[in-house]
Amino acid sequence: MRKVYMDYAATTPVDPGVIEAMLPFFNEKFGNTMSLHRVGQEAKFALEESRETIAKAIKAENEEIFFTGSATESNNLALKGVAFANRKKGKHIIISQIEHPCVMKSSKWLEDQGFEVTRLPVDQYGLVNPADVERSIRKDTILVSIMHANNEIGTIEPIKEIGKICSEKGVYFHTDAAQTFGKLDIDVKEISIDMLTASSHKMYGPKGAACLYLKKGTRIEPILHGGGHEKGLRASTVNIPAIVGFAEATKICMEEMETEGRRTMVLRDKLIDGALNIENSTLNGHPSQRLPNNTNFSFSFIEGESMVMLLDSYGVSASTGSACSSEKLEPSYVLLSTGLPLQLAHSSLRLSLGIWTDEEDVDYVLEVLPEVIERLRKISPFRSRFG
Amino acid sequence: MRKVYMDYAATTPVDPGVIEAMLPFFNEKFGNTMSLHRVGQEAKFALEESRETIAKAIKAENEEIFFTGSATESNNLALKGVAFANRKKGKHIIISQIEHPCVMKSSKWLEDQGFEVTRLPVDQYGLVNPADVERSIRKDTILVSIMHANNEIGTIEPIKEIGKICSEKGVYFHTDAAQTFGKLDIDVKEISIDMLTASSHKMYGPKGAACLYLKKGTRIEPILHGGGHEKGLRASTVNIPAIVGFAEATKICMEEMETEGRRTMVLRDKLIDGALNIENSTLNGHPSQRLPNNTNFSFSFIEGESMVMLLDSYGVSASTGSACSSEKLEPSYVLLSTGLPLQLAHSSLRLSLGIWTDEEDVDYVLEVLPEVIERLRKISPFRSRFG
Repeated sequence: MRKVYMDYAATTPVDPGVIEAMLPFFNEKFGNTMSLHRVGQEAKFALEESRETIAKAIKAENEEIFFTGSATESNNLALKGVAFANRKKGKHIIISQIEHPCVMKSSKWLEDQGFEVTRLPVDQYGLVNPADVERSIRKDTILVSIMHANNEIGTIEPIKEIGKICSEKGVYFHTDAAQTFGKLDIDVKEISIDMLTASSHKMYGPKGAACLYLKKGTRIEPILHGGGHEKGLRASTVNIPAIVGFAEATKICMEEMETEGRRTMVLRDKLIDGALNIENSTLNGHPSQRLPNNTNFSFSFIEGESMVMLLDSYGVSASTGSACSSEKLEPSYVLLSTGLPLQLAHSSLRLSLGIWTDEEDVDYVLEVLPEVIERLRKISPFRSRFG
Repeated sequence: MRKVYMDYAATTPVDPGVIEAMLPFFNEKFGNTMSLHRVGQEAKFALEESRETIAKAIKAENEEIFFTGSATESNNLALKGVAFANRKKGKHIIISQIEHPCVMKSSKWLEDQGFEVTRLPVDQYGLVNPADVERSIRKDTILVSIMHANNEIGTIEPIKEIGKICSEKGVYFHTDAAQTFGKLDIDVKEISIDMLTASSHKMYGPKGAACLYLKKGTRIEPILHGGGHEKGLRASTVNIPAIVGFAEATKICMEEMETEGRRTMVLRDKLIDGALNIENSTLNGHPSQRLPNNTNFSFSFIEGESMVMLLDSYGVSASTGSACSSEKLEPSYVLLSTGLPLQLAHSSLRLSLGIWTDEEDVDYVLEVLPEVIERLRKISPFRSRFG
């Protein structure tokens, strides 16, 4: 049976070139970056080289890149770190209704600590309206956090406009770029971003590495306390192999961004066109302003989880939406926020592509998908209830 | 020139067998453990197998092991997570004066949030007195956190006695076992431990993996908010390669613990005996109740950093104390807490051994060390000042 991995938005395999770059750092150049001896300084050198690679990719200064262990940690740090460091200025934070769970739950926790959070609605495509951001900014607003592109529906948010508004109003702007770093061109100076989260394992680097870009002068506090690593902002022995891998993956993605973006988009659109030929199907997210590798559909009358399971038996790895929420059988809050009815929100399927996806993969999925849906609809209890 | 790595307490090379165990998880079994499909479930299976290996090593139940990204994170989680979850019960926490920086600074941060912290003194060997713990427990005490063994001076704390006291008084007991897990036998049921921190990169596993043992029923809150990973206690895509490596390293260390402990102790004692032959030298830490792989000396009239630099030029990697504090030129607060005068605290040298340390390494160090110290003492400004 053919095996087709179409869950690149959940996590990606590590590029063989990345693994090769990491290997010497496990037991040859394995030092602790804080050690004064050669073994430590060798690791420190690799750390600073990696920092430079990642800074360059988004046109930041080297000293504006802070490594963390995951995008979840970077997002927690951006929200909580800025909130605590600026609470004398104000207690108001603005996010959207479709941020990643780690932003949603960090905000919720901040509310428990006495902060106030405004959650902006999105339109039917999942777009935040920059005018809403502008209207919501108050005197005591300290931070706006709007993701660059949504992880479930792939909609790319108007962060340039939002960044401009925040910059004019003197409010920090953070964007979660876990799904876009390495895929879309990002220039933090041109877009007026104060903070940006990037993740390694979403773009062919290893798990365990991520970073937070932090514009010089941004007031922030650590959330993990301890040793003086990362200029005191993020304690814990620096994970050099993972960071070296993250940097190597960044190099590869930056080199291939244009051609790979175009190639994936063609496959994505073929997949969308084919899937929408299936009866009672709808595309979720924006028709054009979306990630080059993301598709998200609703197929009426059946549950997303059943589709994922049955597709799996055909060798296809897919998802209903965010992997981080997949163990709950609740419908996606992202889809509900776009105004999708409960029934359709329950019947979502995300197929996300990557560098190892080829046309035959897409053809295979388009061959089995109608069969999967037909089989499930035949046994669906929803058909009679909703049909 | 011979190369001798004697900074195993800072970090260790990854065992080749561990690297081999990790490799398939980078790009073959690379799934997200939260994904419902086969690729995800394969990763999930490896996660649960790893959990079992680590649980067995300390006689815990599988569901009592929670993976994190580092010992720093585990310690932050234990302190802050328990403090926030139990603040209705009380606001008082007890630690020692020689805990790792991540425990010291997490406690400081908790003080800023309104908690109260008692920092227990230690004796000349770095030992906490269990009677001090007992005396310090108040009605509103919620947590005692005393490390299993100190990372700088290697002193093993009387955690069995402390655990017993905490258990009798109904106060949670956490121990930072970053330096002992895999080296000393630990039975969490026998010792009455509610929480224990273990780290992978201190025992031949990769950086980026650690865990917190959490006795069933312990009230704790997450510090990283997001997806429902690790039963909601620790959000972030699970770092399977690192965790698999951590488990493999645990297997190796558990198998070799006895023989390796005995072997290292012989080398350690030879190193101690030899180094104490040098004029004006003292051993820091407990003469016998210390880690099998730790030595820590003070050589009067010279600075620890100069020794580390000069030893490095002889091919020997050493440390003045904690790598996490090594970029500061302040004397070790651990040594000062044992009552060591400032001058001797400034002139400390930690030589920590590991599985690749052999007798020739020890002989080489004992050959160059007197030379290094003599050279430095000749140019020492302290000699005239203190001598």
